[in-house]
Amino acid sequence: MIAAADRALVDKLVLANRILYRYGVVDGFGHASVRHDSSPGHFLLARNMAPALVRRDDIVTFDLDGTALDAAGRRVYLERFIHGEIYRARPDVQAVVHSHSPNVIPFGVTGQSLQPVFHMSGFLGEGSALFEIRDVAGDTDMLVSNNRLGAALAAALGSRSLVLMRGHGSTVVGSSVRYAVFNAIYTEKSAALQSEAMRLGAVTYLTRDEARAAAACNAGQIDRSWELWKLAAARPRFQPQT
Amino acid sequence: MIAAADRALVDKLVLANRILYRYGVVDGFGHASVRHDSSPGHFLLARNMAPALVRRDDIVTFDLDGTALDAAGRRVYLERFIHGEIYRARPDVQAVVHSHSPNVIPFGVTGQSLQPVFHMSGFLGEGSALFEIRDVAGDTDMLVSNNRLGAALAAALGSRSLVLMRGHGSTVVGSSVRYAVFNAIYTEKSAALQSEAMRLGAVTYLTRDEARAAAACNAGQIDRSWELWKLAAARPRFQPQT
Amino acid sequence: MIAAADRALVDKLVLANRILYRYGVVDGFGHASVRHDSSPGHFLLARNMAPALVRRDDIVTFDLDGTALDAAGRRVYLERFIHGEIYRARPDVQAVVHSHSPNVIPFGVTGQSLQPVFHMSGFLGEGSALFEIRDVAGDTDMLVSNNRLGAALAAALGSRSLVLMRGHGSTVVGSSVRYAVFNAIYTEKSAALQSEAMRLGAVTYLTRDEARAAAACNAGQIDRSWELWKLAAARPRFQPQT
Amino acid sequence: MIAAADRALVDKLVLANRILYRYGVVDGFGHASVRHDSSPGHFLLARNMAPALVRRDDIVTFDLDGTALDAAGRRVYLERFIHGEIYRARPDVQAVVHSHSPNVIPFGVTGQSLQPVFHMSGFLGEGSALFEIRDVAGDTDMLVSNNRLGAALAAALGSRSLVLMRGHGSTVVGSSVRYAVFNAIYTEKSAALQSEAMRLGAVTYLTRDEARAAAACNAGQIDRSWELWKLAAARPRFQPQT
Repeated sequence: MIAAADRALVDKLVLANRILYRYGVVDGFGHASVRHDSSPGHFLLARNMAPALVRRDDIVTFDLDGTALDAAGRRVYLERFIHGEIYRARPDVQAVVHSHSPNVIPFGVTGQSLQPVFHMSGFLGEGSALFEIRDVAGDTDMLVSNNRLGAALAAALGSRSLVLMRGHGSTVVGSSVRYAVFNAIYTEKSAALQSEAMRLGAVTYLTRDEARAAAACNAGQIDRSWELWKLAAARPRFQPQT
Repeated sequence: MIAAADRALVDKLVLANRILYRYGVVDGFGHASVRHDSSPGHFLLARNMAPALVRRDDIVTFDLDGTALDAAGRRVYLERFIHGEIYRARPDVQAVVHSHSPNVIPFGVTGQSLQPVFHMSGFLGEGSALFEIRDVAGDTDMLVSNNRLGAALAAALGSRSLVLMRGHGSTVVGSSVRYAVFNAIYTEKSAALQSEAMRLGAVTYLTRDEARAAAACNAGQIDRSWELWKLAAARPRFQPQT
Repeated sequence: MIAAADRALVDKLVLANRILYRYGVVDGFGHASVRHDSSPGHFLLARNMAPALVRRDDIVTFDLDGTALDAAGRRVYLERFIHGEIYRARPDVQAVVHSHSPNVIPFGVTGQSLQPVFHMSGFLGEGSALFEIRDVAGDTDMLVSNNRLGAALAAALGSRSLVLMRGHGSTVVGSSVRYAVFNAIYTEKSAALQSEAMRLGAVTYLTRDEARAAAACNAGQIDRSWELWKLAAARPRFQPQT
Repeated sequence: MIAAADRALVDKLVLANRILYRYGVVDGFGHASVRHDSSPGHFLLARNMAPALVRRDDIVTFDLDGTALDAAGRRVYLERFIHGEIYRARPDVQAVVHSHSPNVIPFGVTGQSLQPVFHMSGFLGEGSALFEIRDVAGDTDMLVSNNRLGAALAAALGSRSLVLMRGHGSTVVGSSVRYAVFNAIYTEKSAALQSEAMRLGAVTYLTRDEARAAAACNAGQIDRSWELWKLAAARPRFQPQT
């Protein structure tokens, strides 16, 4: 038996779910996880439900194989293997967001790479990875629904921050819940900017060094966004107003 | 005389109207129907009004010819024949949504086909059908305003989930109210993704097998979206807040 | 001295201002007018202010030369001549909306014509007219700020419903306040659809006969939109909520 | 020691921050400043925080070198040098807005110039300037984080109203807080219109004379927008509603 996760961490994950909904990264689908704070071989993820509705009691603990410790009969996400296998392959990753973030999907289905178009997407300095599930398993339902597919996705991701999943969505990682949320939101914004820029002419992207320096700099500014997002997500539009 | 429809089904249809408005599928125009639960030769559809304002008492029962049983003098939709003729031609269909969903219209007027660009639009595995009213009836007011036009539309739809109506809108079907709403919302989202992807490069769509498997998988997850949509639609923005 | 305008008509014009703001046709700029109900040589238009904030007491009466009868020292719109000269040239017109409606502007500056891309824009059956102020008056501040320019604009409009104003915006007319609002909102929607369709391929527009029949049909359905818009505009987002 | 800034000016700057958030010019990042009303060698700028959350007590006074007089240990923006060096180089400038306004960024990364596409962007009559930080300092974190970079940015801006910052964002100036906000909001709107117009065909922009005359005319109308924006920003969506 492992220790209970830090209460503040659980609350942060709940908040992350609401923020990701509020900023259009997730709709009824998509999910966010965080590595267990005292047991690196486990992670926290909501039960199978719309992210915007997640509350503290909906958070379930999983091992890296995607087996739930405390689901108590509740349904879990079919794609929990995305999270487990990335945590296994990437000790530096502390949080993972999987989504169907709309501006990103056209890149995956056309094989275009996301690049750091501005300093806020410095975390994309290595560009996006691309996962073609058909190469791994032929015709499927497109979901990363077992450990083998999860491991293949993690391998495609490599050391990058973002992997595009053809015909499906994308997965982004971070060194904390807040960074993963930041990266998810700015991946979506950056994709919109890059699409538009590609239509206007030849695009000058950040160099590797510019991207690295910008990402390092943004790391010191993340509180500023988080404070705003926390307030903005506090009353999503579907909540009854009293 | 036929039995009254199930109260819960009527409430679900009312909710569907609000959800379709909340997610931009319908505006002042468009309509959603469901086949009568105890009389397959009848269907339920609101009286002639904006979908967002529909309440339980606004639901009228029609036979498949589009004749109202209980309109009691209230105006009915000019295009009720879309619904009747599709229910007649497609025993598997339990709900129909007709709309002017904006991202879909450019496909109809250019003769482009909607394809399953991601797993959420697996129900588009056979692609979209196209209805050219001019081929059937020459120059008209574009509306499917009688049984002959309704039957021609149903014939164009064939066994597919979606038929584009040139210069007008589209109609999507489902095996329940919830599926029809799901298909309508994801048709709109999928059209936006496909348009954008077509501008970025050559698009890899889901294969028939991928689409079929994805659609089957989504069928088990529909509650997740429905719970979210139900809450999101509970307080549309035009409602006075007390 | 002329009789006071009908109170219900004034209220309808106030509501039109709010609806046009709510649906993105106007921002801080743009204005809507209606011909005086008992004096066809006069029209009603708000004093110089943001449309969303207009109340009954802000409505001023003008003659067709654009002279205010009851401004009582309040500033009036610089472009009231748009309204006066169109009412003079077009006895069939009862209401006028001038705006910088965003989807429409790209058409005016590229000389592209708006066409009836779907039945809701049947009122565009003759296509849009184009007003090039430079041809009339050389380099100006772009505003229709006197009767000569207003008359030139009205001449460009001719018998159409919509005139694009290069580098400025557009003006749409209707046979009542409700029709002018309907035409303004659907001009904006239609422009977005047409832009997108033009990127997808060769567009099949409605024929003249289709457009005419569709417009006639929509005329019988306008209540449906108006009831929705009235509620949607009742609480614009800038209003304090109590 | 310098005199305290005018209280009404400080309140106007706070309001500007909220308006810029409300209209999508800034998100968690971006900042607005105003020159000190009684000491032209100083300017007012919030401490390091999300613009939407700025209150009166968050405003700090800086000299033109970017040294804070009254930060009292609070963090300040890394890019305060944008403001100081522009105030030094441009005595006519009274307010500055730096942002990552999304429609503008594609222009900077493709080297396209923003032009006055309609009369509301008459202030762009000289077109946009372009700042390539790489030409000044090689690979950096993209931020204007010292006086040398600030001076180079101000030099690139020259006598224009807007400078694009490649891979970063843009900076716009005005002769008062209200003008800078107006220019920032209409730069964003104008960029969207220009992008769309460039896709439709060859664009006729305002001539220099048209732009100058339009800008002069808009100067007399700014109250109209400001009154609207003030109300619209009064209750940003993240605020608890009581």
